[in-house]
Amino acid sequence: MNSIFQGLSAFPLTPAGPDGRVDVAALGALLERLVDAGVDSIGLLGSTGIYAYLEPAERRRAVAAAVEAVAGRTPLIVGVGALRTDWTVELARDAERQGADALLVAPVSYTPPTEDEVFAHYEAVAGATALPVCLYNNPATTHVQLSRPFLGRLSGLASLAAVKMPAPKDGGFREELEALRAVAPPGFAVGYSGDPATVPALLAGADGFFSGIAGVLPVPMLALARAARAGDTETAARLNSAFEPLWGFCRTHGALRVAYAISRLLGLGAGEPPRPLLPLAAEVQDGIAGAIGQLPGVRG
Amino acid sequence: MNSIFQGLSAFPLTPAGPDGRVDVAALGALLERLVDAGVDSIGLLGSTGIYAYLEPAERRRAVAAAVEAVAGRTPLIVGVGALRTDWTVELARDAERQGADALLVAPVSYTPPTEDEVFAHYEAVAGATALPVCLYNNPATTHVQLSRPFLGRLSGLASLAAVKMPAPKDGGFREELEALRAVAPPGFAVGYSGDPATVPALLAGADGFFSGIAGVLPVPMLALARAARAGDTETAARLNSAFEPLWGFCRTHGALRVAYAISRLLGLGAGEPPRPLLPLAAEVQDGIAGAIGQLPGVRG
Repeated sequence: MNSIFQGLSAFPLTPAGPDGRVDVAALGALLERLVDAGVDSIGLLGSTGIYAYLEPAERRRAVAAAVEAVAGRTPLIVGVGALRTDWTVELARDAERQGADALLVAPVSYTPPTEDEVFAHYEAVAGATALPVCLYNNPATTHVQLSRPFLGRLSGLASLAAVKMPAPKDGGFREELEALRAVAPPGFAVGYSGDPATVPALLAGADGFFSGIAGVLPVPMLALARAARAGDTETAARLNSAFEPLWGFCRTHGALRVAYAISRLLGLGAGEPPRPLLPLAAEVQDGIAGAIGQLPGVRG
Repeated sequence: MNSIFQGLSAFPLTPAGPDGRVDVAALGALLERLVDAGVDSIGLLGSTGIYAYLEPAERRRAVAAAVEAVAGRTPLIVGVGALRTDWTVELARDAERQGADALLVAPVSYTPPTEDEVFAHYEAVAGATALPVCLYNNPATTHVQLSRPFLGRLSGLASLAAVKMPAPKDGGFREELEALRAVAPPGFAVGYSGDPATVPALLAGADGFFSGIAGVLPVPMLALARAARAGDTETAARLNSAFEPLWGFCRTHGALRVAYAISRLLGLGAGEPPRPLLPLAAEVQDGIAGAIGQLPGVRG
């Protein structure tokens, strides 16, 4: 397999003011840090990149700034999910025109959609772009549950090249990877997200890992992901133990809020989460400072 | 109690083209029909009014058209829910300025919010308007579960005057009404939604019912709601039996898709649902035609 969706994809926060205006200079600096660290790809405007909370015009500004800042040094995957099919198609075309290397499309929902509706949505978006598309399967935010047979059906769409899965509830990565690969075409990449699952997912043979924490801690996350991808179970387990306090905060507060706290602790300039989301309480931020203090290369 | 949120509130579809442009003439005609029928209030831009699928500018156009068409003859409640707090505040202020009589605010979510985040959101919106606000508790679309103690906390906000509840899963309307009234201030209205629950909710003493089907079938829904509100169990049960085939379609396909089918059958001009939502299959539409054929005053 040779896929843009392999390896560790770092999902940066999108720095923005309280009015939702993207701070393109701060975004450029965040991205420079990810390129320097050597992440395998950048996942701009994912859930960690607060795509759902940004006006289309601000999403376009973020893409333009990212294409300029990254300048082809690292593959750039852009999240173009939106509630309406026409909005999504427009964002996809725009990201392609601006120079994105791949797209990430979540089935954002309000009225719960049927499978036929989700399929027609992906068909329209996949038909509107020549870029490889990753299906962003994130039921915690989209509330759309995609069954395995239905994932198989979707994976047959020409542009669909990968899926970003949530960690399976029962922890059975190997079984799920096998089942998904059985229903998807050859070369279709299966990656995972949900930072505490980085090591088990990659040790089980996932093609990639999509990480919000790598957006703020690229160097330690790369060490973790590389050990796991290489099958170095001992190093991966040792590093994972060092991450465990941070995983605890992610499980309790969500990786997005934790990433904002880390940005604040490291002075990365991402600002505050978009209201209604609130910054974590001072004592939780202190706990996160302690949790990342022992990680290697935190300021890398 | 003397509340704008009492009685039957009819939630019209918002007629719009495939590009999401609101058809204000068709909207005016839909609203005229609701005023003529004598519904107790109109719930503009609810879930049935596809508020989540419309650009802010189109939502403003819909409010302007509705205020003009209704011209004070029927109380007008406007849905101003949005993902960001500042977007919601802006929509609330705009609806008030344009002449809405009350607001409906759903805790729209992407990243699952904490209770403190939801509270701060409502605090900001309630503080930005002098209009009475109804908390739109609709976990099937917002995915925010509001516990009873938390509903009690929210109901203490000055502008919060009502809650629109989903039908309780166990069917215990009386028990739930009693529990909610125990935690809310006096005069706080408790209404329900989910059309098949109209009769049980109102017979149990709910202050109001918020109905998507009443947006397209105001006359038969008023007959149903009035019988139930009057405690006329025999008439309510007889009418409810006549509605049962329609409730079956609502349970299977959702009231929104069913309302679009009824609009098409009656030539109400609401157009098609916003993609990714799709019109129901022809045979389902035929079934809905049969289900509404026996209701009194369908074309009223």
